[in-house]
This record gives sequence, structure tokens and C-alpha cells, in this order.
Amino acid sequence: MSHLTTGLEVRRACREGSLRGPTCGLAPGFAQANLVILPADWAFDFLLFCQRNPQPCPLIEVTAPGDWTPRLTAPDADLRSDLPGYRVWQNGELVDEPGDVHRHWRDDLVSFLIGCSFTFEAALQRAGLPVRHLELGRNVPMYRTNIACQPAGRFSGPLVVSMRPLSPRDAIKSVQISAAFPGSHGAPVHLGFPDQIGITDLSRPDYGDAVPVHPHELPVFWACGVTPQAVLMQAKPPFAITHSPGKMFVTDVVDDPAAR
Amino acid sequence: MSHLTTGLEVRRACREGSLRGPTCGLAPGFAQANLVILPADWAFDFLLFCQRNPQPCPLIEVTAPGDWTPRLTAPDADLRSDLPGYRVWQNGELVDEPGDVHRHWRDDLVSFLIGCSFTFEAALQRAGLPVRHLELGRNVPMYRTNIACQPAGRFSGPLVVSMRPLSPRDAIKSVQISAAFPGSHGAPVHLGFPDQIGITDLSRPDYGDAVPVHPHELPVFWACGVTPQAVLMQAKPPFAITHSPGKMFVTDVVDDPAAR
Repeated sequence: MSHLTTGLEVRRACREGSLRGPTCGLAPGFAQANLVILPADWAFDFLLFCQRNPQPCPLIEVTAPGDWTPRLTAPDADLRSDLPGYRVWQNGELVDEPGDVHRHWRDDLVSFLIGCSFTFEAALQRAGLPVRHLELGRNVPMYRTNIACQPAGRFSGPLVVSMRPLSPRDAIKSVQISAAFPGSHGAPVHLGFPDQIGITDLSRPDYGDAVPVHPHELPVFWACGVTPQAVLMQAKPPFAITHSPGKMFVTDVVDDPAAR
Repeated sequence: MSHLTTGLEVRRACREGSLRGPTCGLAPGFAQANLVILPADWAFDFLLFCQRNPQPCPLIEVTAPGDWTPRLTAPDADLRSDLPGYRVWQNGELVDEPGDVHRHWRDDLVSFLIGCSFTFEAALQRAGLPVRHLELGRNVPMYRTNIACQPAGRFSGPLVVSMRPLSPRDAIKSVQISAAFPGSHGAPVHLGFPDQIGITDLSRPDYGDAVPVHPHELPVFWACGVTPQAVLMQAKPPFAITHSPGKMFVTDVVDDPAAR
């Protein structure tokens, strides 16, 4: 699938059913997004949650109720079919994992596109920084922290972070680079002392895969897009749709922090 | 009133009734905000409008329905009394201009604090750039443009901009400086050719006062916080409260673009 070089090509492959796997590495340079879809009567609370927690929930775009097209970031897209895979939830329970959600669509659904870490990881790599989990072909390790998100209405819960081990020199560079991408979680939320944010064992992530932290490396922690998903599952709305893990929505937006 | 050096002091003076004038120049270094208050059934549309138009509507904080305290940016404040003056609107008509809004308060009101230009103007001045309207003791000139805001639900309308004349060298600096303050309208939206954005006569601003543009100066245009007010008045919600012009809410947030 590495021949898919633009957001449009990835979305077309999803719509045709020829792409059902993860989007990591596809359409390099195009911003990818987490997807959360909620009924309109839950949408204000969730929009407020994202506004109050921009590091875990950097909003790329929010649609009007019933509108399946993100008109600002991918104006020809259909959010019902243009991701490789979806999860459908009822009262916090996973009830379906389809390749498209046409039959689940309702006129009151609001779609939230939330920035993901692929963008800043690509920027780290362009700067020559090692990204351990990518080098090892693993998922990034993710941890629940003791940092509470700012609650909003029915939504609350702990911040979930991802971790990348870096040398002190590279950790400094990583702060500078990722800070330039507020739409992709921005600067780290912590580095150095996992126990200070409630993480007792780096070898046992709550999500994803463990990676080794070598001597003289610092674990560097970024707010993670799993946070809104965890908060959503805890709130148990009667109905919700999300992307399947790793199967993101690819926009037409080119990642360029210099042009904002 | 120049003895008021913190957000807390300004808010206390408002609450006591001793400050009823503009907040420009008070509590230097503390972020000031435009205020818009709407009933909950209009709040999702307005929040979405702000999310889609972050340059004219940079959200500083949004309260829960009925909550008069901005818990993140001024946790001891009371938005019903802590501004020097308010405007109360019914169906787009101004019906009251009180010093506090206790008697207008309702349990369904959502308050929006929107960043204002004072923050980046102070940064321009610290960098030694001339800010013409401040030098002349006038209001900044503001113009309706032919640039449409991204509509959201019942809210739509043209972008309103403010203009500051600068030498080419200072114009370049002003882009760099203001871009570091996304919560204060961020980088300019245009410079050089007013007619390209629908402004035919710089000497006749739609709001505020005209200022001279000298030979070899460029007019530089920033998105303006009057935009959401104009959009609000056009949408004519049954009820709304805003700050009185120039009489902003002063937060506890220290303007420091390096620490975000």
C-alpha cells in the first residue's frame, strides 16, 4: 500500500475496500486524524472537552450534525467509508467493527477529527532523531497517568501518554520540534521521572508495546490520542463510532508548521 | 487606575464598582479577553464557529452551562460582575448596558472568553515597533472584509480585521512576533493591498478610528475580535451578553508565548 502517496489516494482505497490495514507510513506528509463520532446531544460536552484539553485532543475539524464530509480538511471525503476500519459502540460496549458505517449513519451524528502523533514522529525522523518503536516495528507504548484531564460535562478521566526514549540532547531537540506541531499533540507533557506522573513500570504499558529505554536515555512523554477514546468509553454514550486502532483518517492537509 | 497591576486587582475593582472604564493598559502582561455569553441551545453552534475560525475567535476558555467562573484562567472570578461594563442583547437589539449582570443571569448561560489584540500589541511594543493608534491615543481602525468566515450552524459573516501601518522591515518583525500569540489572533491575515480583501478606503474604518499610513509603510491586517460580535448580532439569538467595547475581562494568565 506504499504506492498510496496522498490523502485522496488513501481515502479512495478505503472506499473501494482495497485498504483495510493501518495507515501508518501511508501518504507521508499528509496529516492523519483520530475519528470520534457522537450524537448531537453529546457533541457540546465533547467539543468542550477537546477545547479544554488541546494536547491530548487537538481538533483538526468538527462537522455539522449529519454531515459526513470534513469540508475544510478533505472536502471530497466521506467519513462513512474513507477509513480502513471502524468501531461501533453502544453504551461503552463494542458492538461492531465494520469496514464502513453507512448502515450505522444517523442524521444527528457529529464527527470529530483529532490530530495524531504520526505528524510529529515524522518530523522527529526528518531531524534524524531515533524513534524507538518505529525502529523495532512495534506500537508506541502508552500509559495511563495520574494527571486528570480538565473535565467537561459528562466527560472526564486521566491523561494517557505515549513514550519515546531519547538521549538528553535529542530530548531537547524533540521538545523544540514537537512544540511546532500543536495539531499533533505539541510539546511533551513530561520527561525523566515516570513515577511523578503515576507510571510505575515502563515495561508494562497500558496500551501498545514496551520498548527498551537504554542507559543515559530519558523517557519522554507526549499527550496521546488514546485519551479521548478512554474518556469516551468511560462516559458510555448510548452510541458512538471511532476509527479502529491505527486505521486513521488521512486528510488533504500538508504538515507544515511554518505555514499556520 | 494604572495602580491595577494584576488580573485579580482589575476584577476586584470592577466588582466593587470603582472601575467602569476601558481595560487597555491595565494589568500589563495579563491576558485580556472578549466576553460572549449565550444560552446553552446556541452554545454548540458558537463553539463550533470559534473552532473553525481560530484567528478571529481564539478561545481562551469556555464555561459549563450556568457556571459564572472561568475555572482555568481566573478561578476566583465572577463573570457576572468582574468586567467594567456589559451589553445585554435580545434578538440582536441592545437592551441594557449595566455594570454587572446579576439580574440577567440564567442557569443555561455559557460564557466564551476570546483572546484580544492587547496581548500581541504589547509584544510589538516590547520589540520596539510603533503601534500608530496607541501613539495617537485612538482606537484601532477596523474594517469589514470580503473574506467570509467559515460558517457554523446559525453563525456566519465576514471577517473583521484591525489595521496597523508598519515599515516593511517592521511588518516582517510583526509577523514573527504575532505568530507566537495564537491566543491573541496570531499572524496577520493580509498585508499591502487593502482592495484585495474588500477594503476600498483606509480612511473610513467600519469601527474605531482612522490612522495615517505614511509613504513607504504597509497596512498590516489582523483578524479582529469584533468578528464574533458582528456575527452574533447578525444571527440575532434571543438572548446574549457581551462585554462593552474596550471593557475586557482580565484573566490570571500571564502572556508568555514561550511557555505553551
